[in-house]
Amino acid sequence: MFTSVRVVGRGRVGAALSARLLERRISVGDNHADLVLLCIPDSAIREVARALEPGPWVAHVSGATPLAALDPHTRRFGLHPLQTFTKRRGAEQIDGAWAGVTAENPDARARGFWLAELLGLHAFEISDESRVLYHAGTAIASNYLVTLYRTASRLLELAGAPPEALVPLMRRTIDNGFELTGPIARGDWATVEAHLAAISRNAPELEPMYRSLAKVTIG
Amino acid sequence: MFTSVRVVGRGRVGAALSARLLERRISVGDNHADLVLLCIPDSAIREVARALEPGPWVAHVSGATPLAALDPHTRRFGLHPLQTFTKRRGAEQIDGAWAGVTAENPDARARGFWLAELLGLHAFEISDESRVLYHAGTAIASNYLVTLYRTASRLLELAGAPPEALVPLMRRTIDNGFELTGPIARGDWATVEAHLAAISRNAPELEPMYRSLAKVTIG
Repeated sequence: MFTSVRVVGRGRVGAALSARLLERRISVGDNHADLVLLCIPDSAIREVARALEPGPWVAHVSGATPLAALDPHTRRFGLHPLQTFTKRRGAEQIDGAWAGVTAENPDARARGFWLAELLGLHAFEISDESRVLYHAGTAIASNYLVTLYRTASRLLELAGAPPEALVPLMRRTIDNGFELTGPIARGDWATVEAHLAAISRNAPELEPMYRSLAKVTIG
Repeated sequence: MFTSVRVVGRGRVGAALSARLLERRISVGDNHADLVLLCIPDSAIREVARALEPGPWVAHVSGATPLAALDPHTRRFGLHPLQTFTKRRGAEQIDGAWAGVTAENPDARARGFWLAELLGLHAFEISDESRVLYHAGTAIASNYLVTLYRTASRLLELAGAPPEALVPLMRRTIDNGFELTGPIARGDWATVEAHLAAISRNAPELEPMYRSLAKVTIG
Protein backbone atom coordinates (compact mmCIF):
# COMPACT_ATOMS: atom_id res chain seq x y z
CA MET A 1 0.00 0.00 0.00
CA PHE A 2 3.02 2.22 0.58
CA THR A 3 6.30 1.71 -1.24
CA SER A 4 8.20 4.55 0.39
CA VAL A 5 7.74 6.28 3.74
CA ARG A 6 9.33 9.52 4.86
CA VAL A 7 9.98 9.14 8.58
CA VAL A 8 10.19 12.54 10.24
CA GLY A 9 12.03 12.35 13.58
CA ARG A 10 14.72 9.90 14.68
CA GLY A 11 14.00 9.75 18.39
CA ARG A 12 13.39 6.44 20.21
CA VAL A 13 10.33 5.54 18.15
CA GLY A 14 11.40 7.00 14.81
CA ALA A 15 14.74 5.18 14.94
CA ALA A 16 13.12 1.79 15.64
CA LEU A 17 10.38 2.20 13.01
CA SER A 18 12.87 3.39 10.37
CA ALA A 19 15.11 0.39 11.05
CA ARG A 20 12.15 -1.97 10.68
CA LEU A 21 10.94 -0.31 7.45
CA LEU A 22 14.42 -0.67 5.98
CA GLU A 23 14.42 -4.37 6.97
CA ARG A 24 11.14 -4.62 5.03
CA ARG A 25 12.79 -2.93 2.00
CA ILE A 26 10.67 0.20 2.31
CA SER A 27 12.63 3.35 1.49
CA VAL A 28 12.50 5.83 4.39
CA GLY A 29 14.32 8.97 3.23
CA ASP A 30 12.42 9.76 0.06
CA ASN A 31 11.09 13.33 -0.13
CA HIS A 32 8.43 12.10 -2.58
CA ALA A 33 7.25 9.23 -0.38
CA ASP A 34 3.66 7.89 -0.40
CA LEU A 35 3.44 8.43 3.35
CA VAL A 36 4.93 10.93 5.77
CA LEU A 37 5.19 9.32 9.22
CA LEU A 38 5.58 11.88 11.99
CA CYS A 39 7.67 10.43 14.87
CA ILE A 40 7.98 13.74 16.70
CA PRO A 41 6.85 15.13 20.06
CA ASP A 42 3.06 15.57 20.39
CA SER A 43 3.45 19.33 20.78
CA ALA A 44 5.17 19.63 17.35
CA ILE A 45 2.68 17.59 15.31
CA ARG A 46 0.25 20.41 14.39
CA GLU A 47 2.93 22.75 13.17
CA VAL A 48 4.93 20.18 11.24
CA ALA A 49 1.77 18.78 9.59
CA ARG A 50 0.71 22.28 8.49
CA ALA A 51 4.14 22.83 6.90
CA LEU A 52 3.97 19.63 4.81
CA GLU A 53 3.19 19.90 1.08
CA PRO A 54 -0.24 18.34 0.40
CA GLY A 55 -0.23 15.09 -1.54
CA PRO A 56 1.11 12.10 0.36
CA TRP A 57 -0.64 10.30 3.21
CA VAL A 58 0.28 11.69 6.65
CA ALA A 59 0.31 9.73 9.91
CA HIS A 60 1.54 10.21 13.45
CA VAL A 61 2.60 7.71 16.11
CA SER A 62 1.29 9.65 19.11
CA GLY A 63 -0.93 7.97 21.69
CA ALA A 64 -3.05 10.92 22.76
CA THR A 65 -3.03 13.34 19.81
CA PRO A 66 -6.27 13.59 17.77
CA LEU A 67 -6.24 13.19 13.99
CA ALA A 68 -7.29 16.84 13.63
CA ALA A 69 -3.71 17.73 14.55
CA LEU A 70 -2.81 16.51 11.04
CA ASP A 71 -4.93 19.23 9.37
CA PRO A 72 -5.16 20.26 6.59
CA HIS A 73 -4.29 16.73 5.34
CA THR A 74 -7.31 14.47 4.95
CA ARG A 75 -5.57 11.25 3.85
CA ARG A 76 -4.33 10.48 7.34
CA PHE A 77 -4.27 8.01 10.25
CA GLY A 78 -2.70 7.46 13.64
CA LEU A 79 -0.58 4.44 14.53
CA HIS A 80 0.45 4.27 18.16
CA PRO A 81 2.88 1.47 19.05
CA LEU A 82 2.00 0.25 22.52
CA GLN A 83 5.60 -0.16 23.59
CA THR A 84 8.36 1.64 25.45
CA PHE A 85 11.39 2.20 23.22
CA THR A 86 15.04 2.70 23.96
CA LYS A 87 17.89 3.89 21.78
CA ARG A 88 19.90 0.88 22.98
CA ARG A 89 17.74 -1.54 20.96
CA GLY A 90 16.89 -1.77 17.30
CA ALA A 91 13.92 -2.84 15.19
CA GLU A 92 13.49 -6.10 17.15
CA GLN A 93 11.98 -4.17 20.07
CA ILE A 94 8.81 -3.79 17.97
CA ASP A 95 8.20 -7.55 17.90
CA GLY A 96 5.29 -8.80 19.96
CA ALA A 97 3.92 -5.32 20.66
CA TRP A 98 0.47 -4.04 19.79
CA ALA A 99 -0.56 -0.83 18.04
CA GLY A 100 -3.66 1.32 18.28
CA VAL A 101 -4.75 2.49 14.83
CA THR A 102 -7.07 5.47 14.43
CA ALA A 103 -8.70 6.25 11.11
CA GLU A 104 -11.70 8.11 9.73
CA ASN A 105 -12.61 5.89 6.78
CA PRO A 106 -12.06 2.32 5.51
CA ASP A 107 -9.20 3.26 3.19
CA ALA A 108 -7.27 4.98 5.98
CA ARG A 109 -8.04 2.10 8.37
CA ALA A 110 -6.77 -0.50 5.87
CA ARG A 111 -3.58 1.50 5.39
CA GLY A 112 -2.99 1.92 9.12
CA PHE A 113 -3.50 -1.81 9.71
CA TRP A 114 -1.29 -2.66 6.73
CA LEU A 115 1.54 -0.50 8.07
CA ALA A 116 1.17 -1.87 11.61
CA GLU A 117 1.38 -5.47 10.39
CA LEU A 118 4.31 -4.62 8.09
CA LEU A 119 6.14 -3.18 11.10
CA GLY A 120 5.42 -6.34 13.10
CA LEU A 121 2.75 -4.87 15.37
CA HIS A 122 -0.61 -6.45 16.29
CA ALA A 123 -3.09 -3.79 15.23
CA PHE A 124 -6.39 -2.90 16.87
CA GLU A 125 -8.64 0.05 16.23
CA ILE A 126 -9.00 2.90 18.70
CA SER A 127 -11.47 5.70 18.05
CA ASP A 128 -10.24 9.27 17.89
CA GLU A 129 -12.35 10.32 20.87
CA SER A 130 -11.15 7.44 23.09
CA ARG A 131 -7.44 7.92 22.51
CA VAL A 132 -6.70 10.08 25.54
CA LEU A 133 -8.36 7.61 27.91
CA TYR A 134 -6.58 4.73 26.18
CA HIS A 135 -3.26 6.56 26.39
CA ALA A 136 -3.80 7.30 30.09
CA GLY A 137 -4.09 3.52 30.56
CA THR A 138 -0.84 2.84 28.72
CA ALA A 139 0.95 5.54 30.74
CA ILE A 140 -0.33 4.05 34.00
CA ALA A 141 0.83 0.58 32.95
CA SER A 142 4.32 1.57 31.81
CA ASN A 143 5.37 4.90 33.35
CA TYR A 144 3.92 4.25 36.79
CA LEU A 145 5.44 0.78 36.78
CA VAL A 146 8.77 2.65 36.73
CA THR A 147 7.52 4.74 39.65
CA LEU A 148 6.56 1.64 41.66
CA TYR A 149 10.00 0.15 41.10
CA ARG A 150 11.81 3.36 42.04
CA THR A 151 9.68 3.83 45.12
CA ALA A 152 10.00 0.22 46.25
CA SER A 153 13.76 0.33 45.58
CA ARG A 154 14.07 3.37 47.76
CA LEU A 155 12.27 1.64 50.65
CA LEU A 156 14.45 -1.46 50.26
CA GLU A 157 17.60 0.69 50.26
CA LEU A 158 16.41 2.52 53.38
CA ALA A 159 15.87 -0.91 54.96
CA GLY A 160 19.32 -2.14 53.87
CA ALA A 161 18.01 -4.66 51.30
CA PRO A 162 19.16 -5.01 47.65
CA PRO A 163 16.66 -3.37 45.24
CA GLU A 164 17.52 -5.84 42.45
CA ALA A 165 15.72 -8.46 44.56
CA LEU A 166 12.48 -6.80 43.37
CA VAL A 167 13.02 -7.71 39.72
CA PRO A 168 12.20 -11.46 39.84
CA LEU A 169 9.20 -10.60 42.02
CA MET A 170 7.84 -8.07 39.52
CA ARG A 171 8.46 -10.36 36.53
CA ARG A 172 6.65 -13.22 38.24
CA THR A 173 3.72 -10.97 39.14
CA ILE A 174 3.22 -10.52 35.38
CA ASP A 175 3.92 -14.22 34.61
CA ASN A 176 1.28 -15.23 37.17
CA GLY A 177 -1.35 -13.24 35.28
CA PHE A 178 -1.41 -10.38 37.82
CA GLU A 179 -2.85 -12.60 40.55
CA LEU A 180 -3.06 -10.50 43.71
CA THR A 181 -1.19 -11.86 46.76
CA GLY A 182 0.14 -10.10 49.86
CA PRO A 183 -1.56 -8.36 52.78
CA ILE A 184 -4.51 -6.76 50.95
CA ALA A 185 -5.37 -10.06 49.24
CA ARG A 186 -5.32 -11.72 52.67
CA GLY A 187 -7.35 -8.94 54.31
CA ASP A 188 -4.40 -8.40 56.65
CA TRP A 189 -5.08 -4.79 57.63
CA ALA A 190 -2.64 -4.86 60.54
CA THR A 191 0.21 -5.24 58.03
CA VAL A 192 -1.19 -2.49 55.80
CA GLU A 193 -1.34 -0.18 58.83
CA ALA A 194 2.21 -1.17 59.80
CA HIS A 195 3.41 -0.34 56.26
CA LEU A 196 1.78 3.08 56.49
CA ALA A 197 3.38 3.78 59.86
CA ALA A 198 6.84 2.75 58.56
CA ILE A 199 6.42 4.86 55.40
CA SER A 200 5.24 7.87 57.34
CA ARG A 201 8.34 7.63 59.58
CA ASN A 202 10.89 7.00 56.83
CA ALA A 203 9.53 8.41 53.55
CA PRO A 204 6.40 10.44 54.37
CA GLU A 205 6.18 11.88 50.83
CA LEU A 206 5.19 8.39 49.64
CA GLU A 207 2.23 8.03 51.99
CA PRO A 208 -0.45 9.56 49.70
CA MET A 209 0.66 7.26 46.87
CA TYR A 210 0.54 4.16 49.09
CA ARG A 211 -2.87 5.15 50.43
CA SER A 212 -4.42 5.87 47.04
CA LEU A 213 -3.09 2.60 45.59
CA ALA A 214 -4.39 0.67 48.61
CA LYS A 215 -7.80 2.25 48.17
CA VAL A 216 -8.02 1.30 44.48
CA THR A 217 -6.69 -2.21 45.24
CA ILE A 218 -9.33 -2.77 47.93
CA GLY A 219 -11.89 -1.48 45.42
CA MET B 1 22.48 -27.89 59.29
CA PHE B 2 18.94 -29.28 59.32
CA THR B 3 18.13 -32.83 58.29
CA SER B 4 14.38 -32.64 58.77
CA VAL B 5 11.99 -29.70 58.69
CA ARG B 6 8.41 -29.66 59.88
CA VAL B 7 6.57 -27.31 57.53
CA VAL B 8 3.44 -25.95 59.20
CA GLY B 9 0.95 -24.65 56.64
CA ARG B 10 0.44 -25.76 53.04
CA GLY B 11 -0.74 -22.49 51.52
CA ARG B 12 0.94 -20.97 48.45
CA VAL B 13 4.31 -20.59 50.15
CA GLY B 14 4.24 -23.70 52.33
CA ALA B 15 3.39 -25.93 49.38
CA ALA B 16 6.25 -24.59 47.24
CA LEU B 17 8.83 -24.74 50.05
CA SER B 18 7.78 -28.27 51.03
CA ALA B 19 8.08 -29.44 47.45
CA ARG B 20 11.59 -27.98 47.19
CA LEU B 21 12.70 -29.46 50.53
CA LEU B 22 11.52 -32.88 49.34
CA GLU B 23 13.50 -32.40 46.11
CA ARG B 24 16.53 -31.72 48.32
CA ARG B 25 15.81 -34.95 50.27
CA ILE B 26 14.90 -33.12 53.45
CA SER B 27 12.02 -34.78 55.30
CA VAL B 28 9.14 -32.35 55.86
CA GLY B 29 6.53 -34.19 57.91
CA ASP B 30 8.60 -35.27 60.91
CA ASN B 31 7.14 -34.28 64.28
CA HIS B 32 10.66 -34.45 65.74
CA ALA B 33 12.24 -32.24 63.09
CA ASP B 34 15.29 -30.00 63.75
CA LEU B 35 13.35 -27.01 62.47
CA VAL B 36 9.70 -25.98 62.53
CA LEU B 37 9.02 -23.68 59.58
CA LEU B 38 5.83 -21.66 60.00
CA CYS B 39 4.21 -20.97 56.60
CA ILE B 40 1.01 -19.56 58.08
CA PRO B 41 -0.77 -16.18 58.06
CA ASP B 42 1.06 -13.44 59.98
CA SER B 43 -1.80 -13.13 62.44
CA ALA B 44 -1.45 -16.79 63.50
CA ILE B 45 2.32 -16.85 64.08
CA ARG B 46 2.35 -15.74 67.73
CA GLU B 47 -0.24 -18.25 68.84
CA VAL B 48 1.14 -21.21 66.90
CA ALA B 49 4.70 -20.46 68.08
CA ARG B 50 3.56 -20.36 71.71
CA ALA B 51 1.87 -23.73 71.33
CA LEU B 52 5.03 -25.44 69.96
CA GLU B 53 7.03 -27.71 72.28
CA PRO B 54 10.41 -26.09 73.01
CA GLY B 55 13.43 -27.80 71.47
CA PRO B 56 13.72 -27.46 67.72
CA TRP B 57 14.63 -24.31 65.83
CA VAL B 58 11.60 -22.22 64.83
CA ALA B 59 11.37 -19.93 61.80
CA HIS B 60 8.69 -18.04 59.92
CA VAL B 61 8.45 -16.91 56.30
CA SER B 62 6.59 -13.66 56.95
CA GLY B 63 7.85 -10.38 55.50
CA ALA B 64 6.71 -7.98 58.19
CA THR B 65 6.45 -10.05 61.38
CA PRO B 66 9.16 -9.43 64.03
CA LEU B 67 11.14 -12.33 65.48
CA ALA B 68 9.56 -11.64 68.89
CA ALA B 69 6.41 -13.24 67.49
CA LEU B 70 8.28 -16.55 67.79
CA ASP B 71 8.54 -16.22 71.62
CA PRO B 72 9.30 -18.09 73.79
CA HIS B 73 11.64 -19.84 71.33
CA THR B 74 15.11 -18.33 71.18
CA ARG B 75 16.68 -20.54 68.51
CA ARG B 76 14.84 -18.77 65.70
CA PHE B 77 15.08 -16.80 62.47
CA GLY B 78 12.93 -15.32 59.73
CA LEU B 79 13.24 -16.27 56.05
CA HIS B 80 11.05 -14.21 53.73
CA PRO B 81 11.04 -15.35 50.09
CA LEU B 82 10.76 -12.25 47.93
CA GLN B 83 8.38 -13.82 45.47
CA THR B 84 4.68 -14.10 44.68
CA PHE B 85 3.53 -17.72 44.76
CA THR B 86 0.68 -19.52 43.11
CA LYS B 87 -0.80 -22.95 43.71
CA ARG B 88 -0.60 -23.57 39.96
CA ARG B 89 3.21 -23.83 40.09
CA GLY B 90 5.55 -26.04 42.05
CA ALA B 91 9.01 -25.77 43.60
CA GLU B 92 10.50 -24.25 40.43
CA GLN B 93 8.80 -20.94 41.20
CA ILE B 94 11.42 -20.41 43.93
CA ASP B 95 14.28 -20.34 41.42
CA GLY B 96 15.89 -16.96 40.84
CA ALA B 97 14.11 -15.30 43.76
CA TRP B 98 15.75 -13.59 46.71
CA ALA B 99 15.08 -14.01 50.42
CA GLY B 100 15.41 -11.65 53.36
CA VAL B 101 16.88 -13.44 56.37
CA THR B 102 16.50 -12.01 59.86
CA ALA B 103 18.50 -13.38 62.76
CA GLU B 104 19.72 -12.33 66.19
CA ASN B 105 23.08 -14.10 66.31
CA PRO B 106 25.67 -15.67 63.99
CA ASP B 107 24.40 -19.23 64.48
CA ALA B 108 20.83 -18.28 63.56
CA ARG B 109 22.07 -16.20 60.62
CA ALA B 110 24.16 -19.08 59.27
CA ARG B 111 21.16 -21.40 59.54
CA GLY B 112 18.84 -18.94 57.82
CA PHE B 113 21.30 -18.43 54.97
CA TRP B 114 21.91 -22.17 54.71
CA LEU B 115 18.18 -22.87 54.42
CA ALA B 116 17.67 -20.06 51.89
CA GLU B 117 20.46 -21.38 49.65
CA LEU B 118 19.20 -24.96 50.03
CA LEU B 119 15.78 -23.80 48.86
CA GLY B 120 17.36 -22.05 45.87
CA LEU B 121 16.96 -18.47 47.12
CA HIS B 122 19.59 -15.70 47.04
CA ALA B 123 19.83 -14.68 50.69
CA PHE B 124 20.48 -11.22 52.10
CA GLU B 125 20.18 -10.02 55.65
CA ILE B 126 17.38 -7.74 56.79
CA SER B 127 17.32 -6.39 60.34
CA ASP B 128 14.32 -7.07 62.54
CA GLU B 129 13.55 -3.35 62.89
CA SER B 130 13.70 -2.68 59.12
CA ARG B 131 11.42 -5.52 58.05
CA VAL B 132 8.16 -3.56 57.91
CA LEU B 133 9.69 -0.87 55.70
CA TYR B 134 11.29 -3.55 53.53
CA HIS B 135 8.01 -5.43 53.29
CA ALA B 136 6.14 -2.25 52.34
CA GLY B 137 8.59 -1.98 49.42
CA THR B 138 7.91 -5.55 48.29
CA ALA B 139 4.15 -5.00 48.53
CA ILE B 140 4.39 -1.81 46.45
CA ALA B 141 6.45 -3.62 43.81
CA SER B 142 4.23 -6.68 43.50
CA ASN B 143 0.72 -5.98 44.78
CA TYR B 144 0.43 -2.48 43.34
CA LEU B 145 1.78 -3.73 40.03
CA VAL B 146 -1.41 -5.81 39.93
CA THR B 147 -3.36 -2.64 40.70
CA LEU B 148 -1.68 -0.74 37.87
CA TYR B 149 -2.52 -3.52 35.42
CA ARG B 150 -6.13 -3.77 36.57
CA THR B 151 -6.58 -0.01 36.45
CA ALA B 152 -4.92 0.36 33.06
CA SER B 153 -6.94 -2.59 31.72
CA ARG B 154 -10.12 -0.92 32.82
CA LEU B 155 -9.23 2.30 30.99
CA LEU B 156 -8.34 0.35 27.84
CA GLU B 157 -11.63 -1.55 28.03
CA LEU B 158 -13.56 1.71 28.46
CA ALA B 159 -11.70 3.00 25.40
CA GLY B 160 -12.46 -0.17 23.40
CA ALA B 161 -8.85 -1.43 23.32
CA PRO B 162 -7.64 -4.96 24.24
CA PRO B 163 -6.11 -5.02 27.77
CA GLU B 164 -3.72 -7.85 26.82
CA ALA B 165 -1.89 -5.27 24.69
CA LEU B 166 -0.49 -3.93 28.00
CA VAL B 167 1.46 -7.09 28.79
CA PRO B 168 4.35 -6.74 26.28
CA LEU B 169 4.58 -3.06 27.28
CA MET B 170 4.89 -3.88 30.98
CA ARG B 171 7.40 -6.69 30.39
CA ARG B 172 9.58 -4.42 28.25
CA THR B 173 9.43 -1.67 30.87
CA ILE B 174 11.16 -4.15 33.21
CA ASP B 175 13.54 -5.44 30.47
CA ASN B 176 14.61 -1.86 29.72
CA GLY B 177 15.75 -1.42 33.31
CA PHE B 178 12.74 0.72 34.29
CA GLU B 179 13.80 3.56 31.99
CA LEU B 180 11.10 6.23 32.18
CA THR B 181 9.47 7.20 28.86
CA GLY B 182 6.09 8.81 28.12
CA PRO B 183 4.63 12.24 28.82
CA ILE B 184 6.19 12.90 32.24
CA ALA B 185 9.67 11.94 30.97
CA ARG B 186 9.14 14.37 28.06
CA GLY B 187 7.80 17.15 30.30
CA ASP B 188 4.59 17.01 28.26
CA TRP B 189 2.19 18.45 30.84
CA ALA B 190 -0.57 19.03 28.28
CA THR B 191 -0.88 15.25 27.87
CA VAL B 192 -0.81 14.68 31.63
CA GLU B 193 -3.63 17.22 32.01
CA ALA B 194 -5.55 15.57 29.18
CA HIS B 195 -5.20 12.17 30.93
CA LEU B 196 -6.56 13.65 34.14
CA ALA B 197 -9.52 15.20 32.34
CA ALA B 198 -10.32 11.89 30.61
CA ILE B 199 -10.01 9.93 33.87
CA SER B 200 -12.16 12.39 35.75
CA ARG B 201 -14.89 12.03 33.08
CA ASN B 202 -14.73 8.22 32.75
CA ALA B 203 -13.36 6.76 35.99
CA PRO B 204 -13.19 9.57 38.58
CA GLU B 205 -12.38 7.16 41.43
CA LEU B 206 -8.94 6.66 39.81
CA GLU B 207 -8.01 10.33 39.79
CA PRO B 208 -6.34 10.48 43.25
CA MET B 209 -4.21 7.45 42.34
CA TYR B 210 -3.13 8.98 39.02
CA ARG B 211 -2.34 12.30 40.70
CA SER B 212 -0.32 10.82 43.56
CA LEU B 213 1.67 8.62 41.17
CA ALA B 214 2.33 11.59 38.89
CA LYS B 215 3.56 13.62 41.85
CA VAL B 216 6.00 10.92 42.97
CA THR B 217 7.14 10.36 39.35
CA ILE B 218 7.87 14.07 38.88
CA GLY B 219 9.73 13.98 42.23
